[in-house]
Amino acid sequence: MLNIAITAGGTSEQIDGVRRLTNVSTGLLGWHCLEAVMEQLQAAGRHDFRVTYILTDTAYRGVLSDRQHPFVDFLPVSDAESVYHAVDELTSRVPVDFFIHSMAISDFTIAYAAATDELAREICRLPFSEEEGVTAVREVLEHPSGRYTLSEKIPSGHNLVLGLKRTKKVIPLIKRNNPATFLVGFKLLRDVTEEELIRIANRLAEENGCDMVFANQLGELGEENHSGMLIRSGEVIARPTGKRAIAAAIVEEMMKQGGIQ
Amino acid sequence: MLNIAITAGGTSEQIDGVRRLTNVSTGLLGWHCLEAVMEQLQAAGRHDFRVTYILTDTAYRGVLSDRQHPFVDFLPVSDAESVYHAVDELTSRVPVDFFIHSMAISDFTIAYAAATDELAREICRLPFSEEEGVTAVREVLEHPSGRYTLSEKIPSGHNLVLGLKRTKKVIPLIKRNNPATFLVGFKLLRDVTEEELIRIANRLAEENGCDMVFANQLGELGEENHSGMLIRSGEVIARPTGKRAIAAAIVEEMMKQGGIQ
Repeated sequence: MLNIAITAGGTSEQIDGVRRLTNVSTGLLGWHCLEAVMEQLQAAGRHDFRVTYILTDTAYRGVLSDRQHPFVDFLPVSDAESVYHAVDELTSRVPVDFFIHSMAISDFTIAYAAATDELAREICRLPFSEEEGVTAVREVLEHPSGRYTLSEKIPSGHNLVLGLKRTKKVIPLIKRNNPATFLVGFKLLRDVTEEELIRIANRLAEENGCDMVFANQLGELGEENHSGMLIRSGEVIARPTGKRAIAAAIVEEMMKQGGIQ
Repeated sequence: MLNIAITAGGTSEQIDGVRRLTNVSTGLLGWHCLEAVMEQLQAAGRHDFRVTYILTDTAYRGVLSDRQHPFVDFLPVSDAESVYHAVDELTSRVPVDFFIHSMAISDFTIAYAAATDELAREICRLPFSEEEGVTAVREVLEHPSGRYTLSEKIPSGHNLVLGLKRTKKVIPLIKRNNPATFLVGFKLLRDVTEEELIRIANRLAEENGCDMVFANQLGELGEENHSGMLIRSGEVIARPTGKRAIAAAIVEEMMKQGGIQ
């Protein structure tokens, strides 16, 4: 039995009842990876597999054929916290053989929203001393007492400060829970040289145990012109163009490395 | 010639290359209003009209029949600023007879993103005095010198402060540019009494010259169970339930008041 997991789409952090902090991602590349997995495994005559497809609200969701549908479980998620729990639960319960982690997960979630004036007044009430100043101000900037209740709709009458705090990283969970998983990571950067992109992709791979990384740049993300590098052990092993071709290359290489094809 | 404008969907403010501040709105109610306008005008045998449908990226966009399509111009927008310009341009150029303003426009856009530590240090470098303190700190909280370039991808290594500033209100433009326009506004609140909701809807109407307001509450927004009050001159004139019924009631009442039916 082969267990495959794919994550796709961009997460959405709740600011209040009507506002969200979102990450831009169509989820199309993840969907094409799902299609490529189905096509390549069914072409190889395999029926002993299951795909868990973890997707956000805004992720593209295409239509599977009747032949493909029974092999896929859809697992909807919303914010970074919900992805963390879904991936932790899945990888603790199921021995995932292949994990394609294409989701754009927010690095930040909302710590608070406060009126700028209120925050300034709170800072000015601090008992300042040269040494303690920075620590005291940082403490207020991270946890002000004057803040809006985030379950309500924040009033729009005043300028606003949003405090953001880092979310827990999801990708290290995957190998921690299951060292045998073949893990495909993704790195998106902007305006860097190819050398820099490869260097940063390698660091992602080393820190999180990625067996392969697809590295690409903002501005090269269209359906047809999406391009990037598939990197394994520090080497570029493919330079596919177009989302379908990228997905096919990722899945083919992954299956080959994993001894499936 | 009858000119109708409808706005629909939620706007999206760019934080950086991959992050957005969004307003939750499906755009479904706006779409049903478009359908109701087409059905009611075509049922009345009218062919001398045009609808400008201003919609955001995330707004629902259904399919129009071949009979309906030639009467509608789609005008895509993204952030609050782009809506402001689109509505200003349209209402300056075209004598809009009916304007249904159902879009959820962000009250805030991004002024800056700064690392919390960096911001705390900047505040501590201020020459404090009791009187000038609040003004000086507010100034830094609104325009810090240490900030990220928003066209890049903000680094994820540090906690973050997002400074938000208010956007220009779009709704006052409509009557200012065209006092004869029949304007339908929308008010969404949460957990208020019916009296409070009516009071606030009336204030919206008075301040912006709305001829009718549809007032509703968060938590009553489903396709079938969406409910609310249609208010004119301070009185509740209808309590429709379900998005289609709400749209039909809005358009019917609007046409009647405007002397069309």
